[in-house]
Amino acid sequence: MRDNAFEALTVETLPARLGAVPEIAARVGGSPENWQVREVGDGNLNLVFIVEGASGTVIIKQALPYVRLVGDSWPLPLKRSFFEYNALTRQEKRAPGTVPAIYHFDEAQALIAMEFLSPHVILRRALIEGRQLPKIGRDLGLFMARTLFRGSDLAMKAPQRKVDLALFADNVELCDITENLVFSDPYFEAPMNRHTPGLDPLVRELRSDRDLKVAAQRMKHLFASKAETMVHGDLHTGSVMVTEEDTRVIDPEFAFYGPMAFDVGMLLANYWMAFFSQRGHENDGDRTAMRAYLLGVVAETWGTFRDEFARLWHTERGGILYQAALYEDQDDGLASEQALGHVLHDLWTDMLGFAGIEVHRRILGLAHNADFEAIADEALRASCEAAALKFGRHVVVNRNAIQSLAELARLAKALDQGKLS
Amino acid sequence: MRDNAFEALTVETLPARLGAVPEIAARVGGSPENWQVREVGDGNLNLVFIVEGASGTVIIKQALPYVRLVGDSWPLPLKRSFFEYNALTRQEKRAPGTVPAIYHFDEAQALIAMEFLSPHVILRRALIEGRQLPKIGRDLGLFMARTLFRGSDLAMKAPQRKVDLALFADNVELCDITENLVFSDPYFEAPMNRHTPGLDPLVRELRSDRDLKVAAQRMKHLFASKAETMVHGDLHTGSVMVTEEDTRVIDPEFAFYGPMAFDVGMLLANYWMAFFSQRGHENDGDRTAMRAYLLGVVAETWGTFRDEFARLWHTERGGILYQAALYEDQDDGLASEQALGHVLHDLWTDMLGFAGIEVHRRILGLAHNADFEAIADEALRASCEAAALKFGRHVVVNRNAIQSLAELARLAKALDQGKLS
Repeated sequence: MRDNAFEALTVETLPARLGAVPEIAARVGGSPENWQVREVGDGNLNLVFIVEGASGTVIIKQALPYVRLVGDSWPLPLKRSFFEYNALTRQEKRAPGTVPAIYHFDEAQALIAMEFLSPHVILRRALIEGRQLPKIGRDLGLFMARTLFRGSDLAMKAPQRKVDLALFADNVELCDITENLVFSDPYFEAPMNRHTPGLDPLVRELRSDRDLKVAAQRMKHLFASKAETMVHGDLHTGSVMVTEEDTRVIDPEFAFYGPMAFDVGMLLANYWMAFFSQRGHENDGDRTAMRAYLLGVVAETWGTFRDEFARLWHTERGGILYQAALYEDQDDGLASEQALGHVLHDLWTDMLGFAGIEVHRRILGLAHNADFEAIADEALRASCEAAALKFGRHVVVNRNAIQSLAELARLAKALDQGKLS
Repeated sequence: MRDNAFEALTVETLPARLGAVPEIAARVGGSPENWQVREVGDGNLNLVFIVEGASGTVIIKQALPYVRLVGDSWPLPLKRSFFEYNALTRQEKRAPGTVPAIYHFDEAQALIAMEFLSPHVILRRALIEGRQLPKIGRDLGLFMARTLFRGSDLAMKAPQRKVDLALFADNVELCDITENLVFSDPYFEAPMNRHTPGLDPLVRELRSDRDLKVAAQRMKHLFASKAETMVHGDLHTGSVMVTEEDTRVIDPEFAFYGPMAFDVGMLLANYWMAFFSQRGHENDGDRTAMRAYLLGVVAETWGTFRDEFARLWHTERGGILYQAALYEDQDDGLASEQALGHVLHDLWTDMLGFAGIEVHRRILGLAHNADFEAIADEALRASCEAAALKFGRHVVVNRNAIQSLAELARLAKALDQGKLS
């Protein structure tokens, strides 16, 4: 440790190595040799430790120089921890109380000490269990509107935003993962893909679907070039921790300057996948109410996002875009509403595109969702996934001709019930 | 000079200060005290010296820490010279032979020594004089297609492109000039604006035109966020030097990662302004043929751009977007054509939007064009400018519903002849 060269922590070495860090020692309390340490990382990339002591509990998240899921054959730079830290501090400033508190950051060790959230659980697990969390639609709608609006040229000073854009442009390896695994691999027989065997005919159909493959690359083009705001970059239901009363967003190591609609589309896609997976989880009881709840969450999330975005447009639009000098100050408030309508229309369309792609990559690509993976009956899983795939295809390809979430809710129900093939 | 702190050159100090630079001394030749030095900068920002000696002639361009046109009340960082140098080297690589050769760059002195182009003249002056340059349509169409395609995710490796994006993100002060002077100031009574007095009623109409003011900010939104490729950033006819046989693009200090369509739209706008200004230059003879020539140049520039872009799409599409793995490699060449069509359609629409804005800012904003400024008769100048302003408004607002350049040529002629009001 003397030269601070990176060394992965273990349950055994953690107390001795972090006991000397005042911010951590004070939070955990007591003598480090008495700390209880557990490694609980269940994600694909990092180590996560829960450290418990006399005064409290702290989470230690440490990046590894490779993809944990795959091993050191897939190197991944430690600097992702730096981007996660920088994203968390910006999110906390833009949407206070929505991310874990940060106690300590060690760049060389790629290590963040942060708040232990308890009794929070991962949102995806709660939805698989059929729990109806009452606050997620509103909380996540607000989180997205506030972080996305306040990190954009609608609100930030342009020079500061450009410094930030340049900073996050270096998060290239994690963007590369998204560029390949989300936007391209699912649409051809890439080596790391896998899918439930029963889906073979549908997968063949999708991979020869010209309109879909053009639309997917159109969305990739947007992802790679529309540097609008600092996005979370991986905002699925596995990146959210919840209780009945509290919602926190974690794991923003994929953060970069990208299109606002990316986070929104990915989150809604994960709600829709939760919806399509419910039929696979009815062994312990009917999920009709849960399905209705999930479609309601989609509507509430988008509605809250839209309303809060509009509120910020009217109250915090101090950046270089759509200046009041041209609209409100000229007594033309209607021009401002017209511009807002155009911006929200683009967000809607792009959101639908990103959502459909996210559904596909979770069923056809490398990184699958527990929502479907937890369905042991392979035929049942394939049936749930097939409905989701068709839904995703419809949404991406027709994103310019979809009017409302009510229309998509009807479509989702019909597909889920096998009334559309 | 010992500590290399910036010091503006003068005709008197230049030989002593640059005589010791081998790359310059060798090109100019002879004893520095015998060099002939003239300062010829007629742009808004910088010093430009022609240095002539026994062996040859060299151009020395030096940035000043303020806007030359305005004085030191408007500071502007010297680093723009760094961006100009970096842009020139990339343009030379991507479109060989289209920019002046670079002999020497001194970052601290914000100084570039480059090829003296002779007998080249500034394209704008040639067009005002009524000269029909035979090669500009083709040369500039190729220049744009090659620099814009090869600097984008269609061709570059993504990590390299992101390093470059971050580098140019620091060119914030020059982007700020464009953001304000091009996209916003013309549309309200900003302090630095000026316009020909006879235009007052039309200017009032445009500044209360809701659709136009929304469209202008939509284009600004694209300009500020669509980081597709390294654009020249100021590609008007004053940034092009020509002979009958040769075309060179100069002055890329506004370079940054922005939308491909920006350069194309700005250049075409300047051709269209040349068209609308011809009526003001008929004191020395009829300009009917010159008008037809200019509309032909618009069509040839766009056609060449489009064809070359398509050729590069088919031969150099090695970047992360629209990968052959999804299209050609799957025996679906038609998917590749479909995607190309969508990309070109976006380019077309965005190009029209940027073109209309450029016309407006040159007549309503701070930086006017010699095309119109050289028309001494104020009523005649106002009449030419009015037709251009109406054309610009039509093109920006209706950019999604314009099919062809032939249609715009008819519109331009009708406006120029007073057949539409």
